[in-house]
Amino acid sequence: MSFLSHLESVVRDVSGSIACSVMGFDGIAVETYQAQDPGELELSSAWAEYANLLTQLKNAADLLKTGTVSEVSINTEKVMTLIRQVSPDYFVVLALRPEGNYGKARYVLRVTAPKIRAEL
Amino acid sequence: MSFLSHLESVVRDVSGSIACSVMGFDGIAVETYQAQDPGELELSSAWAEYANLLTQLKNAADLLKTGTVSEVSINTEKVMTLIRQVSPDYFVVLALRPEGNYGKARYVLRVTAPKIRAEL
Repeated sequence: MSFLSHLESVVRDVSGSIACSVMGFDGIAVETYQAQDPGELELSSAWAEYANLLTQLKNAADLLKTGTVSEVSINTEKVMTLIRQVSPDYFVVLALRPEGNYGKARYVLRVTAPKIRAEL
Repeated sequence: MSFLSHLESVVRDVSGSIACSVMGFDGIAVETYQAQDPGELELSSAWAEYANLLTQLKNAADLLKTGTVSEVSINTEKVMTLIRQVSPDYFVVLALRPEGNYGKARYVLRVTAPKIRAEL
């Protein structure tokens, strides 16, 4: 089973999903499954920017002894973004419409992350 | 009514709350209500660090046309942190134990933010 089928099942299971991607902390997407036309949203630029912030967060968490950063969510007026660390080098990111099912999204990413990790 | 009573009612309403604070984007806390001994967690340092990241996120969102960043969540092994923008200069931040009620926390911060804004 490839990454893509995992990403596709995340997008299918979570209502309001726009796209789901496996990315490196270097900001480069390994694989992406896109559900809907994101319109004017420049998701790939946003995600590369988030990867940069996540790297800073990982470093901050080390210093602050708050434990490993497992999940980050950045919600704007137009898109909710849920990010879960998969390995020290990779994370999975899901973009949802603001009316999407956020609770389901958290659950689905939590159970999908180990499946993706197993394929790395 | 002061900030503190709003912060206290957030902490009382959300199970697993550790502390709730109104902070400036400069990383300085205006007011904090603390529920439990945070132990070894250095929350104030973490929050100052998050304020710095939020500022970068605000700038990124402007560039990326994803709309205003309304809510950010950073969850580690030991603490879940929910952050909601209150005004262009201030945000409210809530720290929860990992077993805390995350959905309730999102709801309570959403309804409390306008009350805090009204006091600014």
